[in-house]
Amino acid sequence: MGRWEPDSRGRLQEAALALYSERGFDQTTAAEIAARAGVTERTFFRHFADKREVLFGGSELLRERIVSGVAGAPAGQSPLEAVARGLDVAAALLGEGRRDLVAQRQAVIAANPELRERELAKMADYATAVAATLRQRGVAELQATLAAEAGMSVLRVALGRWAGSDDDRSLPAIMTAALAELRAVTADR
Amino acid sequence: MGRWEPDSRGRLQEAALALYSERGFDQTTAAEIAARAGVTERTFFRHFADKREVLFGGSELLRERIVSGVAGAPAGQSPLEAVARGLDVAAALLGEGRRDLVAQRQAVIAANPELRERELAKMADYATAVAATLRQRGVAELQATLAAEAGMSVLRVALGRWAGSDDDRSLPAIMTAALAELRAVTADR
Repeated sequence: MGRWEPDSRGRLQEAALALYSERGFDQTTAAEIAARAGVTERTFFRHFADKREVLFGGSELLRERIVSGVAGAPAGQSPLEAVARGLDVAAALLGEGRRDLVAQRQAVIAANPELRERELAKMADYATAVAATLRQRGVAELQATLAAEAGMSVLRVALGRWAGSDDDRSLPAIMTAALAELRAVTADR
Repeated sequence: MGRWEPDSRGRLQEAALALYSERGFDQTTAAEIAARAGVTERTFFRHFADKREVLFGGSELLRERIVSGVAGAPAGQSPLEAVARGLDVAAALLGEGRRDLVAQRQAVIAANPELRERELAKMADYATAVAATLRQRGVAELQATLAAEAGMSVLRVALGRWAGSDDDRSLPAIMTAALAELRAVTADR
């Protein structure tokens, strides 16, 4: 395997991305992914409920981490500062992944309207969870929603830049820069 | 009919919303909507491609108006000011609608995951179109995307407040206040 020897789960994810890229998501079966990964179909379904989950399997964990980042922000911090804590945690988690696989995943999702809508729904879930966490910190509903949604825009944009080949910085660095850019854009009159 | 006498299109939209609310979106057919509206099924399909389009039929026009608002902003205006022009146009267009029907529509969409994903996709389409328009004005890609997405968050939040019973101001007034709130939230440290 050379420099990178993945476990079954990682091999399945890589095989799925390769097949979705080559043939398209709709034209790929779980059995084909398992075969490409060198495992049984049963192993596939031990790791993923269906072939869509190979793409979205990490979203529960990501949401939990973002929310715990926001919840753990010091009491005196502003809504956007608290959201920035959540983004830091997200950047640390996602930044551990392989950039080329993230890029491949994004290309697969971009090519399929159903997957695009699912990805948007996940981002909306994160925003809803972050807004709820901000409200628990005493932030009013309107501010909480706007700060949460702005934060998720920053996450999405930063992830896209990191996955793309045009920005060599680390994901945390790109995330911080994107957040600063959001502040500049909304402050500019 | 009393104080409000709608045309076939309006009657169909109202009938669809009533049936979707009563029975659920999945349990309602185009034929039933037509019957409730007192028109033929053929008339239904003259106005709408399918029963989902009754809910999203105005989105093309809305996107065009938002984009033309952004494109028409004076050359010296900042990205967010240009986006605010687009939001003004959107508020004027949507504010002509009946608040109770907008509220009913939002409740129907909220109750159905497929419709929620479709709604998110429409909002993402608007954001993409607004970002492209900003780039044509010379705005860098990152700023354009962040300003566009923040603007669409403001649109969504303002529309929700206006449709809800907790805010009696006009939609343009709520939109302006939400945009000011976004500026405050992102400026706050």
